Amino acid sequence: MANASGGTKPKVCVIGLGSMGMGMASSLLRTGFPVAGCDVDAARVEALKGQGATGDISPGAAARGAEILITVVVNAAQTEDVLFGAAGCLNELAADACVISCATMSPEAARAMSERVEATGRRYLDAPISGGSKRAASGELTVLASGSAAAFEASRLVLSAIAAKVYELGDAAGLAASFKMVNQLLAGVHIAAACEAMAFAAKQGLDLAKVYEVITAAAGNSWMFENRVPHILAGDYSPQSAVSIFVKDLSILMDMGRSGSFPLPIAGAALQMFLMAAGAGMARDDDASVARVYERLTGIALPKPT
Amino acid sequence: MANASGGTKPKVCVIGLGSMGMGMASSLLRTGFPVAGCDVDAARVEALKGQGATGDISPGAAARGAEILITVVVNAAQTEDVLFGAAGCLNELAADACVISCATMSPEAARAMSERVEATGRRYLDAPISGGSKRAASGELTVLASGSAAAFEASRLVLSAIAAKVYELGDAAGLAASFKMVNQLLAGVHIAAACEAMAFAAKQGLDLAKVYEVITAAAGNSWMFENRVPHILAGDYSPQSAVSIFVKDLSILMDMGRSGSFPLPIAGAALQMFLMAAGAGMARDDDASVARVYERLTGIALPKPT
Repeated sequence: MANASGGTKPKVCVIGLGSMGMGMASSLLRTGFPVAGCDVDAARVEALKGQGATGDISPGAAARGAEILITVVVNAAQTEDVLFGAAGCLNELAADACVISCATMSPEAARAMSERVEATGRRYLDAPISGGSKRAASGELTVLASGSAAAFEASRLVLSAIAAKVYELGDAAGLAASFKMVNQLLAGVHIAAACEAMAFAAKQGLDLAKVYEVITAAAGNSWMFENRVPHILAGDYSPQSAVSIFVKDLSILMDMGRSGSFPLPIAGAALQMFLMAAGAGMARDDDASVARVYERLTGIALPKPT
Repeated sequence: MANASGGTKPKVCVIGLGSMGMGMASSLLRTGFPVAGCDVDAARVEALKGQGATGDISPGAAARGAEILITVVVNAAQTEDVLFGAAGCLNELAADACVISCATMSPEAARAMSERVEATGRRYLDAPISGGSKRAASGELTVLASGSAAAFEASRLVLSAIAAKVYELGDAAGLAASFKMVNQLLAGVHIAAACEAMAFAAKQGLDLAKVYEVITAAAGNSWMFENRVPHILAGDYSPQSAVSIFVKDLSILMDMGRSGSFPLPIAGAALQMFLMAAGAGMARDDDASVARVYERLTGIALPKPT
């Protein structure tokens, strides 16, 4: 195949042109891959075409003949629909194509997806991503990946175009999904804790910018505190990552906990805070909106946009 | 006074020679301060004397004539006892001495303590510390400080001997205590979350050293995850910071929440995990012992000491 020789680049189809998928598709175009894009929103497909891609709103039409398929949709159900649904594309791919599946899903779902794809003779890389939309656009994502040696080999060129760091986490689908869920547990809790701490600081009448300065240099710091609290300080809840993402990811985690009889009380408390934000109409707002739940309930004053 | 001229150094008394106070006293001796130490444990007093200090098991006897008193005890009640109790030392201090109070306590307790000290003509610096025993020993603590200009001026030489960084957080006692409580909220939640995440990772059968490698480079990282998870990986729960510390600090936080009608559900969930660890007999073990609560309950296997 093209990528085995290191010569011409394989044809790649990216399905799901949200902030992550669009950035990944752009990174691939920039590094010389032939790219087809697909999204339910025709305007996004057109935007990618403007960068030199082909594309279609139907996965089957977009993916025809692709050697690499990257699915960057919301969850396992959408991934399944893209691959196996009525307008699904799996059978349109090259006979030995590789599916790089980036949606966050349970390890069980990833294993099931992999089995169905591999039953057609194709490869499957369980490949959840991390890093946010800016790093997607610059080709500097972190990819947590697991799958067969053949899946890694087929994906190597594409991964190096979209990622600054690829963790190889084992030879079976599901392992990368498990690592991603551990990360999401921590990330979700840390966002909720950052919001609770800043709301509590406001209740105490503290200078919130000073709190940010002190905490980011202290033992209370987290990656999420450092990244999300500036949204609170700016009073800017336009979604860089929406509340609904953590409702979804922590719900997958809770399902895993229940099915394995494994208690997750801290993550469970965090999920309730994201649900409060969603219930208050903030599901599509930035996940730092959890701070506004405390504001709405208690009457503290958080910063307003300038 | 001596410190106003920048010449001879003021006589300092350090009360509470645990891992933090002993390190601070050693840093002061190393930088040429005359130091008196006090602890209920006579062996600790003797150990400090071996480094060139004077000392006594009675606060009043140890503090006689001191120009700076540093209290590094467990909580507000002990601080109060040291200052105002039957063997208390406030009236033994120089007439214009300054009390540097390092115990974590509520802002309300810090304000009350400051008022009582200042009513005697002495000064009071609300000065909770952060950084751990190693940085106490090397004179590189972080000090969160608030108080009058006179209290800051009196404390300056001593603070520069014990701290790498001093945050000046306002002109009244209680402000530094509030910042410290915000930090403890986050620190406590992050320890509990780190333990929950590592226990969950063990449940999923993941390589825990690999989880540490991936998470510390990912959005799920926190200062506490990075600092405490190595204890779990080594199976070493000898106390660097004990479970009981966070039971105490998060309980102060919960009291503040209750008295101000301010909900703190994430911190509340974390406190329950520290209480579970304490209830299981681990109160004096390292705070990463929260991971062993999940182990004991669910039968997952965490690393054993080698």
